[in-house]
Amino acid sequence: MFEVIRSDLDTLEDNLVRDVASSVDLITEVGTHLVRAGGKRIRPALCLLTAHGGPDFSLEYTLPLAEALELIHTASLVHDDVIDNADTRRGTATANAKWGNQVAILSGDYIFARAFALVSEKDYDAKIYHAMAKLVANLSVGEILQDYNVYKAVRDEQDYYDRIQKKTADFLETCCLIGADAGGMEQDEIDQLAVYGHDIGMAFQITDDLLDILETSEQIGKPSGNDIRQGIVTLPAIRALQVSPDADELEHIVTDPEMTDDMVARALDIIRATDGADYAKQKADAFLLDAKRHLPARLPEDIRDAFIQLADFIGSRDF
Amino acid sequence: MFEVIRSDLDTLEDNLVRDVASSVDLITEVGTHLVRAGGKRIRPALCLLTAHGGPDFSLEYTLPLAEALELIHTASLVHDDVIDNADTRRGTATANAKWGNQVAILSGDYIFARAFALVSEKDYDAKIYHAMAKLVANLSVGEILQDYNVYKAVRDEQDYYDRIQKKTADFLETCCLIGADAGGMEQDEIDQLAVYGHDIGMAFQITDDLLDILETSEQIGKPSGNDIRQGIVTLPAIRALQVSPDADELEHIVTDPEMTDDMVARALDIIRATDGADYAKQKADAFLLDAKRHLPARLPEDIRDAFIQLADFIGSRDF
Repeated sequence: MFEVIRSDLDTLEDNLVRDVASSVDLITEVGTHLVRAGGKRIRPALCLLTAHGGPDFSLEYTLPLAEALELIHTASLVHDDVIDNADTRRGTATANAKWGNQVAILSGDYIFARAFALVSEKDYDAKIYHAMAKLVANLSVGEILQDYNVYKAVRDEQDYYDRIQKKTADFLETCCLIGADAGGMEQDEIDQLAVYGHDIGMAFQITDDLLDILETSEQIGKPSGNDIRQGIVTLPAIRALQVSPDADELEHIVTDPEMTDDMVARALDIIRATDGADYAKQKADAFLLDAKRHLPARLPEDIRDAFIQLADFIGSRDF
Repeated sequence: MFEVIRSDLDTLEDNLVRDVASSVDLITEVGTHLVRAGGKRIRPALCLLTAHGGPDFSLEYTLPLAEALELIHTASLVHDDVIDNADTRRGTATANAKWGNQVAILSGDYIFARAFALVSEKDYDAKIYHAMAKLVANLSVGEILQDYNVYKAVRDEQDYYDRIQKKTADFLETCCLIGADAGGMEQDEIDQLAVYGHDIGMAFQITDDLLDILETSEQIGKPSGNDIRQGIVTLPAIRALQVSPDADELEHIVTDPEMTDDMVARALDIIRATDGADYAKQKADAFLLDAKRHLPARLPEDIRDAFIQLADFIGSRDF
């Protein structure tokens, strides 16, 4: 999908490992474990793609920005895993599982700081620092809101959109903003690509949340329902709370912090008996359509194609 | 002590409350609680004092830097309290005790981010961002090292100095560096004040650690010994491990994560029977003397006096 930035992303992988290293072996070990645990690298890819689309693209100038964005994402996941007491992520042991909460919390802080340090090594415009600092503040606020609202049967869609905007869409928007600025685009193009980033971010998170309702866990042959178990009410559940004849029973389950596996399974059955999943899929598709409509006219053809492929990829994740 | 910057510090208090505010009430509540919990404000005071000492002092230019340094300190304490599972700090409930670990970890991230956001709102030199990012990285590394080395009977003084340098001295050095740069000082003066900051940071931490060995807790009429209980071996204990006839018994205690209150009391008795406390006090005094020797000749008289008073204050904390 990312052919046009394949070699940039390869360099990024090497630089991530290099730049989390420290004179203290333990830090290097934790940092290397974290960046090697992988991920889709969607954030740096977006930053690089948008920069490639501009007239002044320079890999040397853009790469530390792309890398800082991925490090911010990594640090934020490390803290999320501590908060969720998660043992694995993408099949790999989390930092808290491997080294304990102390090391995980502080490694997250270290990686946040390394992101800002990377960006301060070049003479970027102050608005770049500002965008990154605002991003980290927003991410934290989004997570606090989510964690504080667990086990509440929110029926308001706007509340859900606000949450996923802070959690994901603002981030992808910032990646596009920073990349477009680094590539020397005109302000109207920067603004359009910011909308593209926001839209695919919204679609990405809606799809991610939908998978948790529809996906079948290999081990138990049942949908995973992790969000419901953690008290996080996502779009299909909100829809079901609005339209299901069993809405009261669903509300009873999703607001119970002590819910059993059977209750989770029953909640999933209630949601799947409604149009909740289709409804969420339609919303995601609408965001992706809007994203494609906001691609600037002046984009080089290969970059435009990559942006469209990225949107299609998000829309076609396995259901 | 800080007469010359009294009104600056009053403005700082107001700005701290203003700048941790968020559109989300819970964040504003946590942030306000944290910055109102007080503290000695030594970091912003140092930054402001050094800036006042330069030819180009501007409060408007320096205040966001001083504020960012205090916010970084605050955020780092919030994460320390989560790690230490502490209920109170300076007599006030910690964020983790009041709102749980999730909110505390994310509030810490938010406050770190607000510090960087503040600094990005003005057009400071990239080296300012770099100094701050490096500071946060070093702080995290220092804490990781400390937490990973608990319940080890370190007998190497240099190891201890390395730890407190990362934990405290680097921070106070950075406050002086940033303040001196903001005040428009010459490079030789900046370098000298960096040494001053480092030295009083070392003395401050040695003294803080010493108080934990000597201070009597009001409730039980015994020294608090919190560091020993947490497996943190400080200078008086290292000295005792070197010179005490009961060094083996002391080592046995400080390496036992299950140590009882009686064992802590016995460890304190062993340390207090040696010259450990005097030895640490002498080291602190030597750092303070070196600090005063590094005050640049061209400092205005009132600023020089304040620097000297600050060093004397650190040397005379209640024993």
